[in-house]
Amino acid sequence: MIIILKADTSEADAKEILAQIEQSGLQPLHMPGVERTVLGALGDERVLQSLHLENHPQVEAIKPVLSKYKLVSREIYPQDTVIQLGKTPVGSQQFTIMGGPCAIESEEQLLETAQQVKAAGATVLRGGAFKPRTSPYSFQGLGVAGLKIMQQVGQETRLDTITELMDIKDLDDVARYTSAIQVGARNMQNYSLLKAVGETQKPILLKRGLSATIEELLLAAEYIVATGNPNVMICERGIRTFETATRNTLDLNAVAYIKEKSHLPVIVDPSHGTGVRTLVGPMAKAGVACGADGLIIECHRNPRESVSDAAQALSPTDFSELVQQLRPFIEASGRTFIPLPDADQLGAS
Amino acid sequence: MIIILKADTSEADAKEILAQIEQSGLQPLHMPGVERTVLGALGDERVLQSLHLENHPQVEAIKPVLSKYKLVSREIYPQDTVIQLGKTPVGSQQFTIMGGPCAIESEEQLLETAQQVKAAGATVLRGGAFKPRTSPYSFQGLGVAGLKIMQQVGQETRLDTITELMDIKDLDDVARYTSAIQVGARNMQNYSLLKAVGETQKPILLKRGLSATIEELLLAAEYIVATGNPNVMICERGIRTFETATRNTLDLNAVAYIKEKSHLPVIVDPSHGTGVRTLVGPMAKAGVACGADGLIIECHRNPRESVSDAAQALSPTDFSELVQQLRPFIEASGRTFIPLPDADQLGAS
Amino acid sequence: MIIILKADTSEADAKEILAQIEQSGLQPLHMPGVERTVLGALGDERVLQSLHLENHPQVEAIKPVLSKYKLVSREIYPQDTVIQLGKTPVGSQQFTIMGGPCAIESEEQLLETAQQVKAAGATVLRGGAFKPRTSPYSFQGLGVAGLKIMQQVGQETRLDTITELMDIKDLDDVARYTSAIQVGARNMQNYSLLKAVGETQKPILLKRGLSATIEELLLAAEYIVATGNPNVMICERGIRTFETATRNTLDLNAVAYIKEKSHLPVIVDPSHGTGVRTLVGPMAKAGVACGADGLIIECHRNPRESVSDAAQALSPTDFSELVQQLRPFIEASGRTFIPLPDADQLGAS
Amino acid sequence: MIIILKADTSEADAKEILAQIEQSGLQPLHMPGVERTVLGALGDERVLQSLHLENHPQVEAIKPVLSKYKLVSREIYPQDTVIQLGKTPVGSQQFTIMGGPCAIESEEQLLETAQQVKAAGATVLRGGAFKPRTSPYSFQGLGVAGLKIMQQVGQETRLDTITELMDIKDLDDVARYTSAIQVGARNMQNYSLLKAVGETQKPILLKRGLSATIEELLLAAEYIVATGNPNVMICERGIRTFETATRNTLDLNAVAYIKEKSHLPVIVDPSHGTGVRTLVGPMAKAGVACGADGLIIECHRNPRESVSDAAQALSPTDFSELVQQLRPFIEASGRTFIPLPDADQLGAS
Repeated sequence: MIIILKADTSEADAKEILAQIEQSGLQPLHMPGVERTVLGALGDERVLQSLHLENHPQVEAIKPVLSKYKLVSREIYPQDTVIQLGKTPVGSQQFTIMGGPCAIESEEQLLETAQQVKAAGATVLRGGAFKPRTSPYSFQGLGVAGLKIMQQVGQETRLDTITELMDIKDLDDVARYTSAIQVGARNMQNYSLLKAVGETQKPILLKRGLSATIEELLLAAEYIVATGNPNVMICERGIRTFETATRNTLDLNAVAYIKEKSHLPVIVDPSHGTGVRTLVGPMAKAGVACGADGLIIECHRNPRESVSDAAQALSPTDFSELVQQLRPFIEASGRTFIPLPDADQLGAS
Repeated sequence: MIIILKADTSEADAKEILAQIEQSGLQPLHMPGVERTVLGALGDERVLQSLHLENHPQVEAIKPVLSKYKLVSREIYPQDTVIQLGKTPVGSQQFTIMGGPCAIESEEQLLETAQQVKAAGATVLRGGAFKPRTSPYSFQGLGVAGLKIMQQVGQETRLDTITELMDIKDLDDVARYTSAIQVGARNMQNYSLLKAVGETQKPILLKRGLSATIEELLLAAEYIVATGNPNVMICERGIRTFETATRNTLDLNAVAYIKEKSHLPVIVDPSHGTGVRTLVGPMAKAGVACGADGLIIECHRNPRESVSDAAQALSPTDFSELVQQLRPFIEASGRTFIPLPDADQLGAS
Repeated sequence: MIIILKADTSEADAKEILAQIEQSGLQPLHMPGVERTVLGALGDERVLQSLHLENHPQVEAIKPVLSKYKLVSREIYPQDTVIQLGKTPVGSQQFTIMGGPCAIESEEQLLETAQQVKAAGATVLRGGAFKPRTSPYSFQGLGVAGLKIMQQVGQETRLDTITELMDIKDLDDVARYTSAIQVGARNMQNYSLLKAVGETQKPILLKRGLSATIEELLLAAEYIVATGNPNVMICERGIRTFETATRNTLDLNAVAYIKEKSHLPVIVDPSHGTGVRTLVGPMAKAGVACGADGLIIECHRNPRESVSDAAQALSPTDFSELVQQLRPFIEASGRTFIPLPDADQLGAS
Repeated sequence: MIIILKADTSEADAKEILAQIEQSGLQPLHMPGVERTVLGALGDERVLQSLHLENHPQVEAIKPVLSKYKLVSREIYPQDTVIQLGKTPVGSQQFTIMGGPCAIESEEQLLETAQQVKAAGATVLRGGAFKPRTSPYSFQGLGVAGLKIMQQVGQETRLDTITELMDIKDLDDVARYTSAIQVGARNMQNYSLLKAVGETQKPILLKRGLSATIEELLLAAEYIVATGNPNVMICERGIRTFETATRNTLDLNAVAYIKEKSHLPVIVDPSHGTGVRTLVGPMAKAGVACGADGLIIECHRNPRESVSDAAQALSPTDFSELVQQLRPFIEASGRTFIPLPDADQLGAS
């Protein structure tokens, strides 16, 4: 850690701070300069943070030398982490496609959509049982009944499943009925929730907050991992900027950056990342090309009837065509694309 | 609601949509134009939303005519709402000052700070018992023990009290021990929490999310009011922008805008809004000048020892001097500033 | 155009506005509603703009029905525009790669770099002769001497050339010595400059401003086209957001969006779009995948010696490897990649 | 300057960099640490910048110790700079009010508006002769004819005058006919223009760019001062953020921050900072309260007829009422407000 002192700091003050650094077990460094005195402290910066030197009246600025995340960093684990999401190995050489409706509306709707996304090549079924809605009068999701539908449809289609957890009280149900848990963008810094999912061993899809920096996103992942659950997938789903032509600004720079710095798998959500149906395809391809490990795409058997996020949902036909178009990009990126075999091909299953 | 159709829409399609509008009980309007056909639907736009016309393949764009918030709008209640936060009438002609530490650290610390902010002129004591922290190893707050300290200190100093609620499970405790409940920026769109506090009658200080638009902030307030609790105070505490010289960008435009559109009281938080101790004073004055009903300011008996947000906390001396400097601005804005009488002046209380 | 009146507007006021609309030759529409009266005006919205109805005291809001750009829109010209940049057909089925140093430093430096980017597959050589620099003491570019070097190197290597024009006074020189003119991000709304380049027939690469919306970018392109020069290429080069891990946030949503709405070619600049050497490759691939017509990439024969933007320049080896890696993505996107033949292969040329 | 090396850097590489630092005449510092080696270089950081150490393959990050601006910093000149704008001492104990129309439309219009803003208390008349417009068909300003009108109206009313310079070719005319020159937000980093106005001694009002950080704004001011013109006034006029309810987000944090760091006067533009007529008043008061030295406010004799920016212009009556309301805030901020005496009171002048 680098500690920059104010221009008028006396030598006595500098020495007092150096003594504090030394007492905390770190190695102090003194760099008297022409315009400023700069101090250094070498060792575990988390120890130093507890000194709260930023409160010292003679301290002008503190600059950390190391990034604040450790466990999710490639400096600790250089190899890619592969997370077993049910039967789907996310982060492996095999590219992952997750698809399904924004909200679970009925068993019939979910089953039909599931069959269609599976036929197209998806191995993970998404769908919301609890919906964050801006109006108290809007459809709030089917709740636990929706989770049970998801489990049943997952078993019937042999798809792995993922749904969003919004409230700690629903954790047991979500963990029981689905293969993986999504932490939504609005909850990326809900530390109670992060801690709760960190105490499970379920695969977690952690979505980037609307205005979260990449560092904050990795720190939220670190929070889950540090609590005890290493099975974290990062999801880029667009950030809020001044641009209003698209619902969000999909930050693919973040995907390339996180793949370089972290060993965790990264999933791109081009549906929320654009909010516009016709842009989902191009940005799904771009997500593949910049190095993502998978995609999560909204698909509704009849987008015109979707109760939420209809403007961005693909029809099954569009979804299927898109996956076909993705294949050469997946191969160009050195990955493979292996859809699930049909139930028929599996014999009596 | 205005519905703009795509350039190639047939008249049959336009008529089908008009029929849908009529069937939902709204008045349809047909505006065939040179380059585009535009439709109108007059009446309650929430009814129309349930039609999901944005999903229609021939609909290019939907433009609402009315703002989505109703109950918090001056169109419904033109007069300023005054909220009784304990003995403090927030939103009245009397300007409100809330002060106290970021976190409750001990009874001694809170009592000393409370006495000092009261002597300076504050009538509401703030302090966190549950702290959202980015690290699982950091101080997480004293929890219910902190709430009890706050109640005791509030009674002793005759200050009203406010603390942040982070988890629904703590709602009963927070409601029992404090005068008002704060919903933090990270929870501004945590609808489960909004609904829970909406089912109480406690005064709620709703903080703007880091990347929430003014409309989203007012809709979150609407959510609480619609659930049944009209006692909502809006808090502007800075938004996230590209500027990094300050921790956040305090958006005082939002204060002036909300005071014009809504009848709810608005409180400014210059501590989080700047993140820099020396900027708290100027921005507190600016908050008064642009029409806020009150301020919430962090004050620690010894900022150097504060366990959190130390860079922005004022010392009691600075807090007291600032309140003195605020007086002429409060008067210039046509408000009064009435500190609590000292306990001594009240006789045997 | 949709005109929303204030809640308390009298019928007389509404009729006065309707009369104004009619007098301007547009078709007026009256939509009296429960809470608001809404007016419509059908026809050329630019005529209506001259009425300045937004100034009318009873007008609450004006909502345009049509986008403000016409000439650059696919509604006017549905087919892709192909721009002949020297020998390079930009926007055609053939993918375009532009490469070269940030700044022209010497003839030797530019020639060596040019030979290397050509060998790798680029057909257009970029390089700055006039540099916008934040310090009056920094290297400001070689000026006209640099332009002459560029012309000579272009002739020697048979590469087409592009350089930034910063000042109208240099227009004649830039137009004389190079194949195409770049308008930099800082000048995207410098209307004097847009008009000046609009009066030529040179191919123009218009870079998006740091905080320009897509609509503003297309309007700036419209400005050039309307002035008389249809040869405009749009360049996405990153916008400014709250994220600081990367220099800018490359907005590939904008590429997909513009390709849908406009017939103009779109070029992606992953060098400025990321500002980080290791991210240039992944984002170049993503640019190809989302539908761009070409890439412009910084390459320096020795990045460590580059006088500017060194952190994002590729070495010739890296540039060459990247182009090889791009080939399957270019093919996956249905385009071809045709590098220039070597001079040797051309015989006596 | 602090130089952080990559984790795998050899001691030989570290020593090579230290040698480079020493050769450039700076004092090198070696701080070997557990996880990283950190180097320091003490002395003039501008010398060090010329080494381009950021290009070294073993350098992970460079952190400057000092801010990059010097001449505009209070570290160099602690006292407030007072700039003599004609008869108006900007930055003095006397608060400055500038008012006038967005664009000069005619002599009659400017004279009438000038008389009204003067009667209200303004001492500087603003008005645009060259207008940056998004459409090539829109009104582009009266040009030099407008400048002559401004000079004449300034002489007649004894008001000082300010207008925007958009193109270097108009510098002589603008300097001849007006008291001060405005550099607009779009030109804040137009270095050719900054250099040109830096070579004059005219007072310059430098407006913050839409997406310029405070540091970039101060560096642009530094550019002008370093070129030779110390008479720079900084203008905060709103930045672009995700918020769309207001035209821009007026960043008053920046005003308080710049007043602390720099000795230059700061002017607030609540007209562009909000874009909404009813918000100009509250934000003008807030600008006074947070420490600005002056305000620049758009006023049109008949806002409904204004050819540009009509939504934010005040009528003369509103302008006059606002200035009356500002008086107690100006006094609360410890400043005085001294309008010009009427010509009549001056006798035969």
